[in-house]
Amino acid sequence: MSNSDLHQKALDYHQGNRPGKIVVNAHKPMESSADLSLAYTPGVAAPVREIAKDASKVDLYTAKGNLVAVISDGSAVLGLGNVGPLASKPVMEGKAVLFKKFADIDVFDIEVDTQDVDEFVQTVKNIAPTFGGINLEDISAPRCFEIERRLIKELDIPVFHDDQHGTAIIISAGLLNAIEIQGKNIKEVKLVCLGAGSAGIATLNLLCKLGLNKDNILLVDKEGVVSTDLQNVSQVKAQYAAETDKKTLAEAMRGCDIFIGVAAANLVSKDMIKSMANNPIVFALSNPDPEISPADAHSVRDDLIMATGRSDYPNQVNNVLGFPFIFRGALDAKAKEINIEMKIAAVHALKDLAKLEVPQEVLKAYNADSMSFGKDYIIPKPFDKRLVDVVPKAVFDAAVLSGVANI
Amino acid sequence: MSNSDLHQKALDYHQGNRPGKIVVNAHKPMESSADLSLAYTPGVAAPVREIAKDASKVDLYTAKGNLVAVISDGSAVLGLGNVGPLASKPVMEGKAVLFKKFADIDVFDIEVDTQDVDEFVQTVKNIAPTFGGINLEDISAPRCFEIERRLIKELDIPVFHDDQHGTAIIISAGLLNAIEIQGKNIKEVKLVCLGAGSAGIATLNLLCKLGLNKDNILLVDKEGVVSTDLQNVSQVKAQYAAETDKKTLAEAMRGCDIFIGVAAANLVSKDMIKSMANNPIVFALSNPDPEISPADAHSVRDDLIMATGRSDYPNQVNNVLGFPFIFRGALDAKAKEINIEMKIAAVHALKDLAKLEVPQEVLKAYNADSMSFGKDYIIPKPFDKRLVDVVPKAVFDAAVLSGVANI
Repeated sequence: MSNSDLHQKALDYHQGNRPGKIVVNAHKPMESSADLSLAYTPGVAAPVREIAKDASKVDLYTAKGNLVAVISDGSAVLGLGNVGPLASKPVMEGKAVLFKKFADIDVFDIEVDTQDVDEFVQTVKNIAPTFGGINLEDISAPRCFEIERRLIKELDIPVFHDDQHGTAIIISAGLLNAIEIQGKNIKEVKLVCLGAGSAGIATLNLLCKLGLNKDNILLVDKEGVVSTDLQNVSQVKAQYAAETDKKTLAEAMRGCDIFIGVAAANLVSKDMIKSMANNPIVFALSNPDPEISPADAHSVRDDLIMATGRSDYPNQVNNVLGFPFIFRGALDAKAKEINIEMKIAAVHALKDLAKLEVPQEVLKAYNADSMSFGKDYIIPKPFDKRLVDVVPKAVFDAAVLSGVANI
Repeated sequence: MSNSDLHQKALDYHQGNRPGKIVVNAHKPMESSADLSLAYTPGVAAPVREIAKDASKVDLYTAKGNLVAVISDGSAVLGLGNVGPLASKPVMEGKAVLFKKFADIDVFDIEVDTQDVDEFVQTVKNIAPTFGGINLEDISAPRCFEIERRLIKELDIPVFHDDQHGTAIIISAGLLNAIEIQGKNIKEVKLVCLGAGSAGIATLNLLCKLGLNKDNILLVDKEGVVSTDLQNVSQVKAQYAAETDKKTLAEAMRGCDIFIGVAAANLVSKDMIKSMANNPIVFALSNPDPEISPADAHSVRDDLIMATGRSDYPNQVNNVLGFPFIFRGALDAKAKEINIEMKIAAVHALKDLAKLEVPQEVLKAYNADSMSFGKDYIIPKPFDKRLVDVVPKAVFDAAVLSGVANI
């Protein structure tokens, strides 16, 4: 499909008979006056009284326990930048329908009209009683780090910035498999990360928890390699400042095992791919156009494993593999947070699922004759119905074991 | 049904197989990878771009134009008082399902964890881009007056405090019909209002716009008749302070034509009803137990018209006759506010509908052999399907005529 065809088709899809993608429905009987007297006055006084006596009853009598807020200020929407709250709404509704489709979680999308950190935090705190969990979305770095940190501290429900942790979890699952297939060792691999925004930093944080050696990381952003020589590096980036005299992306990539791109289209050349170590791994995740196209990368290396953010190539790193199932597990456990143990459990569940035989229905959903663990299948596919069985259970168990469940 | 039976039945209803009363569903296809590429990346970039260019397109590509927030701080919930945000949630979800059932409006219930006026206003303002309208609910007086006034001023979408204006509109519609049936003239009737909270004040405001003479009103609260002799009367009440030497409710009711109770159970005695003028009108609206029971009132007067808030007596004053249809008309007109012209249009639409022949399906819904305009039928019934035709249209037309529509 051409870009302009897709544009028009997507507009038609969003308009349709009824604008947007979500509806709110009643799921209890509402057909008679007797029904109304239970749903509203006078019957509704009963759950009100019970919750006023015991706050935990709110999960028994309202939608709260299965309700997640997808909240954005529209400051970093897709690759489109700071489009503001109104224009972010289609994305947040999109997230809502993915939560529903994949994990039967109800979502209110909330677009917030302030980009002041204090005011944003206060607003989310104030509306938090409504929800069982909060998914922060498309908030620009470095504001997103402080916002998430403060909300996690102040609220007793899971707060999860998907652009950070969702992305980090899917990348990590795919990367662990790629490292295994390429016969490498996570403790020894040299990794270049292009992009020091929320996804890049969170991915490095998680990979280090999974065994990556911090000394083997080169973080590269618009100004080049983040090194200890640089002045005025933000605190967030500074933790990955390397003692190196390499300055450019090309220099950084020479001899490295792994490239992760969470930056922008076409920043990586064929020569850079050529200069990588044997059996390299390239995650070029910029959307819709990757840092280097799979065709270009494969044209210069046949020992490559490549992943992108696109559904039309193998190994799509797609956050939908994570957030619905991670929240499903967290909500089921009534977890008060989504901690590192739960994130790592999700990584391993995804990683392990990719090694199992792929069911016929998944092949059918993707018009594929075969699909099996290997260079072109390192991560499960979104329409794999086993995801909702294995990932939430792993997250749930980790919540219980790490002491943040409340069941 | 006994109170304890109703209590348990209502708890069972709210728990059921799935806690609460609402679900959020996708209403566009979500079955294939191709569908996902329209609902989310990369297709979703198309409506984002269009809305970023032209904000009005948000109504074309998102649910915003049909989405109302029902927002409470839980400070004045039903007759139960300040139960806080969590315990208010069943009521707000109840409101959500009524909006849906009666006018196909999608609602997010939002429970706000602050009772500070400034912070509440700021929070609602900040999340307002999400919504096409805001229904404030169960917020205590006098805070509700300032909150509504400030939000109306600062937002360009309808903001409507249903406990004030919804109640006022239904009372006014019923009262105009009762006045006609009793052969009285609104310009001359003497009215006593017991209760100086949001419902009482808003009802008096609206009735004065409809022709009631302010000098014929006695407002009574816990301290007795609000008179110009009293010190320290709040600004809101002071506008109805009367030049009178009457001090008690009993003195106020002697000889009056109309009693409106929006206060608490059993505050009115048979003797007070006896002391009213000929052909009196009694709206005893405290829920679940009225200021005087219909049985007691009718036992001392046979020239009475009586209304309550209960569904098991004739003439139920039920806000569900108003808010779904008023918002339907306002949203359809893309009105930037719900102004007095729109409120009065709703009053007349409800009043006039009660005078039309009642369809068989309405009789059936209420197990009634007959129902016709008169002392026991002064207001339409909630399950009358003509409501959604006549009230929204009246409100819509008034929005257009008064210049607040945006179509």
